[in-house]
Amino acid sequence: MEAFTHPNHGKYKVIGTRPVRHDGEDKVTGRAQYAADVYFPDLLYGHVLRSPHAHAKILSVDTSKAEALPGVLAVTTSADLPRLEDRLIESGEGVENMRYMTDRILAADKALFKGHPIAAVAATDPWLAAEAVGLIEVQYEVLRAVTDVVEAMSEGAPLLFDQITTTIMGKKELKATNVCMHTRHQQGDPEAGFKEADVIIEREFKTKTVHQGYIELHSATALARADGQITVWISSQGPFWARDAIAMLLKKDLSKIRVIPMEIGGGFGGKIPVYLEPLAVLLSEKTGRPVKLGMSRADVFQTTGPASSTASKIKLGFKKDGTLVAAQVWMAYEAGAYPGTWGAMGAMCVLAPYRIPHSLIDVYDVLTNTPKVAAYRAPSSPQALWGVESIMDEAAQKLGIDPIDLRLKNAGKEGDTRADGVVWPRIGLIETLEAAKNSEHYKSPPPSAPNQARGVALGYWHNAGLQSSAVVGINLDGTANVITGSVDIGGTRASMAIIAAETLGLKAEEVRPSVADTDSIGHTDVTGGSRVTHTTGYAVYLAAMDAIEQMKARVAKLWDCKQGEVVFDEGAFRNVNNSHEPITVRQLAPQLPRTGGPVQGQGTISPKTVGAAFGCHVADIEVDTDTGKVTILRYTAVQDVGTAIHPSYVEGQMIGGAVQGIGWALNEEYIHDDQGRMMNPGFLDYRVPTSLDVPNIDTIIVEVPSPGHPYGVRGVGETPIVPPMGALHNAMARALEVRIRELPMSPPKVVAALKDKHAKAGQIAQAIPAQS
Amino acid sequence: MEAFTHPNHGKYKVIGTRPVRHDGEDKVTGRAQYAADVYFPDLLYGHVLRSPHAHAKILSVDTSKAEALPGVLAVTTSADLPRLEDRLIESGEGVENMRYMTDRILAADKALFKGHPIAAVAATDPWLAAEAVGLIEVQYEVLRAVTDVVEAMSEGAPLLFDQITTTIMGKKELKATNVCMHTRHQQGDPEAGFKEADVIIEREFKTKTVHQGYIELHSATALARADGQITVWISSQGPFWARDAIAMLLKKDLSKIRVIPMEIGGGFGGKIPVYLEPLAVLLSEKTGRPVKLGMSRADVFQTTGPASSTASKIKLGFKKDGTLVAAQVWMAYEAGAYPGTWGAMGAMCVLAPYRIPHSLIDVYDVLTNTPKVAAYRAPSSPQALWGVESIMDEAAQKLGIDPIDLRLKNAGKEGDTRADGVVWPRIGLIETLEAAKNSEHYKSPPPSAPNQARGVALGYWHNAGLQSSAVVGINLDGTANVITGSVDIGGTRASMAIIAAETLGLKAEEVRPSVADTDSIGHTDVTGGSRVTHTTGYAVYLAAMDAIEQMKARVAKLWDCKQGEVVFDEGAFRNVNNSHEPITVRQLAPQLPRTGGPVQGQGTISPKTVGAAFGCHVADIEVDTDTGKVTILRYTAVQDVGTAIHPSYVEGQMIGGAVQGIGWALNEEYIHDDQGRMMNPGFLDYRVPTSLDVPNIDTIIVEVPSPGHPYGVRGVGETPIVPPMGALHNAMARALEVRIRELPMSPPKVVAALKDKHAKAGQIAQAIPAQS
Repeated sequence: MEAFTHPNHGKYKVIGTRPVRHDGEDKVTGRAQYAADVYFPDLLYGHVLRSPHAHAKILSVDTSKAEALPGVLAVTTSADLPRLEDRLIESGEGVENMRYMTDRILAADKALFKGHPIAAVAATDPWLAAEAVGLIEVQYEVLRAVTDVVEAMSEGAPLLFDQITTTIMGKKELKATNVCMHTRHQQGDPEAGFKEADVIIEREFKTKTVHQGYIELHSATALARADGQITVWISSQGPFWARDAIAMLLKKDLSKIRVIPMEIGGGFGGKIPVYLEPLAVLLSEKTGRPVKLGMSRADVFQTTGPASSTASKIKLGFKKDGTLVAAQVWMAYEAGAYPGTWGAMGAMCVLAPYRIPHSLIDVYDVLTNTPKVAAYRAPSSPQALWGVESIMDEAAQKLGIDPIDLRLKNAGKEGDTRADGVVWPRIGLIETLEAAKNSEHYKSPPPSAPNQARGVALGYWHNAGLQSSAVVGINLDGTANVITGSVDIGGTRASMAIIAAETLGLKAEEVRPSVADTDSIGHTDVTGGSRVTHTTGYAVYLAAMDAIEQMKARVAKLWDCKQGEVVFDEGAFRNVNNSHEPITVRQLAPQLPRTGGPVQGQGTISPKTVGAAFGCHVADIEVDTDTGKVTILRYTAVQDVGTAIHPSYVEGQMIGGAVQGIGWALNEEYIHDDQGRMMNPGFLDYRVPTSLDVPNIDTIIVEVPSPGHPYGVRGVGETPIVPPMGALHNAMARALEVRIRELPMSPPKVVAALKDKHAKAGQIAQAIPAQS
Repeated sequence: MEAFTHPNHGKYKVIGTRPVRHDGEDKVTGRAQYAADVYFPDLLYGHVLRSPHAHAKILSVDTSKAEALPGVLAVTTSADLPRLEDRLIESGEGVENMRYMTDRILAADKALFKGHPIAAVAATDPWLAAEAVGLIEVQYEVLRAVTDVVEAMSEGAPLLFDQITTTIMGKKELKATNVCMHTRHQQGDPEAGFKEADVIIEREFKTKTVHQGYIELHSATALARADGQITVWISSQGPFWARDAIAMLLKKDLSKIRVIPMEIGGGFGGKIPVYLEPLAVLLSEKTGRPVKLGMSRADVFQTTGPASSTASKIKLGFKKDGTLVAAQVWMAYEAGAYPGTWGAMGAMCVLAPYRIPHSLIDVYDVLTNTPKVAAYRAPSSPQALWGVESIMDEAAQKLGIDPIDLRLKNAGKEGDTRADGVVWPRIGLIETLEAAKNSEHYKSPPPSAPNQARGVALGYWHNAGLQSSAVVGINLDGTANVITGSVDIGGTRASMAIIAAETLGLKAEEVRPSVADTDSIGHTDVTGGSRVTHTTGYAVYLAAMDAIEQMKARVAKLWDCKQGEVVFDEGAFRNVNNSHEPITVRQLAPQLPRTGGPVQGQGTISPKTVGAAFGCHVADIEVDTDTGKVTILRYTAVQDVGTAIHPSYVEGQMIGGAVQGIGWALNEEYIHDDQGRMMNPGFLDYRVPTSLDVPNIDTIIVEVPSPGHPYGVRGVGETPIVPPMGALHNAMARALEVRIRELPMSPPKVVAALKDKHAKAGQIAQAIPAQS
């Protein structure tokens, strides 16, 4: 692994090392407890009745036969959920409207997507519960379904709601439309900008719905006690958000609900929304017994939030020397069955890497008869950016400029204004591009056999800040405990231990990190937005610094000096006048009981600045022109991570993101029938990459410290999913001399594109307007 | 219930109310999880080989046959424990010498009490483990055992150790003796004091070994992972102490050990020492699997620490008007098989209630072939004080003074110097005596039928401070979570919620209290010494105040004013200049994310002043002179608790303590055979009171706020066990005209005493020196 190291990096003692992760042994030995492992002797099992139709009026629901079945203890329907006001709630990542959320949990009048929950049953065993669901009689009036965003926006499309709250250019309106949000950003004078351009390229792109594909299925168990106290065991990236959501949906005080996050088998953004949790609580309230609900793989695909399908039209204008002068973007994002704001997120990302004086971005969030989309690793950025990166590559070819040089020429840097108006703080895009350019991979000649080529593309994610809390307790032997509320998905227990150890002058192994439930730590937002090592790490730093301040007072007491005379550096407390031998935390700790009691630091943070992160991927490929199969010969992921707290997990995130991006680029897609039903809801037909499909992926960590973080962390996990679509598309374009502008670039599409390569009116080429 | 209310009491909004306890429903429905409930699919079961002899040399231990038994996965003996230095460790309550503790956990060369662990086995089922223990061959050389403290101090007694570290008047010495500690306190000139006295009474008293009698048996489960991380699930009053003990015994970092305190079914001080825990860890380390160990009731009686038996000689000198002028105390406390300091604790209590110008106290801790004694509710105070209270009653009779008036005349108060040299802060002894005197019970005529009478006695406990940590998290709806490390035995979750609610201006129901494990909160000492509501409550107060300070900054931000202009009173933040409408925590909380993120307060405390607490019990009894059975006709417990945070639990503690004291007074005792073996190790033969044995006990709460606590809390749980022995003894003395100076005053002793009432040389009367 090559490394681009920032100048201060060598000063760290623990940051940058690679200790064994604290949850590793439990996970590899099978001891780690997941949501499905929760068990009680009197556990009831729930089952959900789901709509078989993607769009239907619900005329009647008769649960009497189900309720009469011996062993069935409760049935719940939408009638048990309080109606909530039309209020947008920040869910930690993304936005939920409480009114629509109630309806998403249990449909009232209409089923809006296949699998929409209609009712749920609790019974003494899971088979009885399933049988009871089969006894519920629902009368539907089936309606025409729409799953394609462009069709959903068009005149005469079936409407999901008679009226919805839609946000047009920041203003809320009540309208009869499937467009639930329109976002516009403008810089300069786009029309004038394009007039300055020597070369203008305008292209259309489409992407299909894809799923996060986490291995662990959803599971939730709830116990509602007669005294009003509720405990919920969940598989979630956001136990605090789950608590908020349950409290709002069921109108309860937060202090009545304890959410216990179990270990989680993947989430990638998809395990933020609640699905089963409120149903488990409702059924437990009715029975007084714990109730567990789970999903099948088909349930996960068909009823949990995937990533939006999109359609876009992107136009870029260049000077002859490669300078980008103007850009125009039109995009539509699938919102699924309920209003969402993921398109608005895409609008922030689509032109982010480049300094463009004149730009106009219009993005639409569009309702469709599909499950409400959810976050998926750098949500909305991949769908937006690969189109831009395709045109950048085409322009590089046309202008005869090295594709990295073209990007370097236009790369945004500190002080530049982004197309959505944000002014960049210190970012590492140029360093990332230079690291890619100077990599051994990029300096080696591209593969040159027939149907081989190299592609390059950028990825971007802004990374989230949000809110985190942490507590650092000093043990009486000077080791320490770190308590946070951030569910550990990517090894963040280790990151938290490293940050605390670095701050306290301890070894990583001397710090015990733990993930507390919602009763046991201050509010902490979701594990998402690549934010945990950044923001929860920041809270850990503050808590450790608070502990150090408290310890300074103890040292001053021992030394009979003023607290101001005690400093902490190089892992030890020192007297500024050198009046005493320095003393480490481990030496001081046994004296804490005598000098005032325990030391426990706390920190909370909602950082103002987060660390935007850019990645550049280089892919060498070979295409089998008979089958359309793409073989990746070599792949390098370069990324500015700010500071790599635990380089192994940083590399792991970079590799994992690249693999998911490769799957999205080449194979993954939801296939719907003409009634809006997903036809491939399983891993046999929905094709995620396996270890046989991807090469070893090389990583180059670039470290341009983020100015908004004490250790310069930016966040890692999301950016690396963004470049693969563009990199593979550009490599294929150079290998085959044809650009496939619809994801996934799967074997059938490759074969079809090759067949039509020299024809003027191919199936795909039709969609491409004439080049300007 | 009558109430003596301190002047500020009315100002509290939540303190003094009686919300339902937060753990109540789980406990009454059987959902609460205790240590015995811990289960894993690959759980191994341990069994302990215990010495059948109270005193024996261990010549050899052969575990080969046990190890060869199929299904046996590990055997551990003392050879697996590292030898530790001769170092005294404060265990949170009491003192442990690490060197002796190793030997107590697993005997090396000698078995020092019946049931002393020699080896432990882990097997795939509990019956196999028991069978394997039977296959371990141990050769013993049986030695003469000693269980009586006076015999153990005498010339020619069998010695437990060739040499022990003994503390004589504060100096450590290495000696061949069973006396492991001698404590002396002197005030004034005792010899001269007695010369001033008009009436001198000198008496001898004896008490027997008694057990805490908690219902839940000991249980411990450990999982030691290959990466060195250990988790232990325990039934303990002190999870942090258990962690400390395991770490020291097995030489590990504290950060490697997570102790999870399960709900606890009683402890009363007896669940502070570790017994099974280190064995479970050793066996888990050898097998890589979780190992559970438990005890039978006989194990609990025979091998866990009971309360000391004692012998004492007490002399008090009075002026004719009742003024106490001199006192001399000689006491010996059973230490059990290893050095301890409980006698030294008794020396602090024995004369505590009274202002005595001249006094001399000599107390000895004495080794015996019995399990090392442990704390039991106001440890060492009952054995000491009832003798003093007997003489006070005798003096009241002799001087013709009302027994409460005699005590009022000599009652210690703020500024007085106690016999052990402590100068009293504000205490409520006088108020307690006055509340007793003015009670409806005491003002009513004493029962006057034959063999009926009333007795009165005082009790005292200093209550502990020690160390506690707390965190208070503000939820986004303004409800709050309180996190502490104090195991909830007596309803302290409710107390913590009340204290946080009072401080934050919330309702008790809006605060969710939780008990965290040792990974998840700062260091917190044992639940013992009546300290949780006092000291952990203090930490909760500090954490809530820290949260309020943080919220003041947010309010200042919202109001665009200086933080110093924001005050918090009457449950709301106000601007000192009344520039804005006051805002409550619930109103402010939703604005926290926007004003800087979560608010989480932390507090730690090791209080300098604790709140000494006095109780006065009044008992009306009738004795059946044929059977010796004592029937309690009416019983009132009066006590200064400082402030009653949750009066129902205060009353519960007062009643529970009185009941345990009644059992100790009338029935409970260890009966040893001539080889030092306890012969009554079960609840059939060791007679604790049942609900049929005790009347309804009335309580009168006196509230003289402790100056060392923000809400004036003193602590409640221990004081009420102290007065019953004296009150019942004095009632019996007045009903029967005979004083039984040996506990328990059980039916056989009553019958014997009555038989000898008029004889000069009865079995018991022999032990009583002539009255002066």
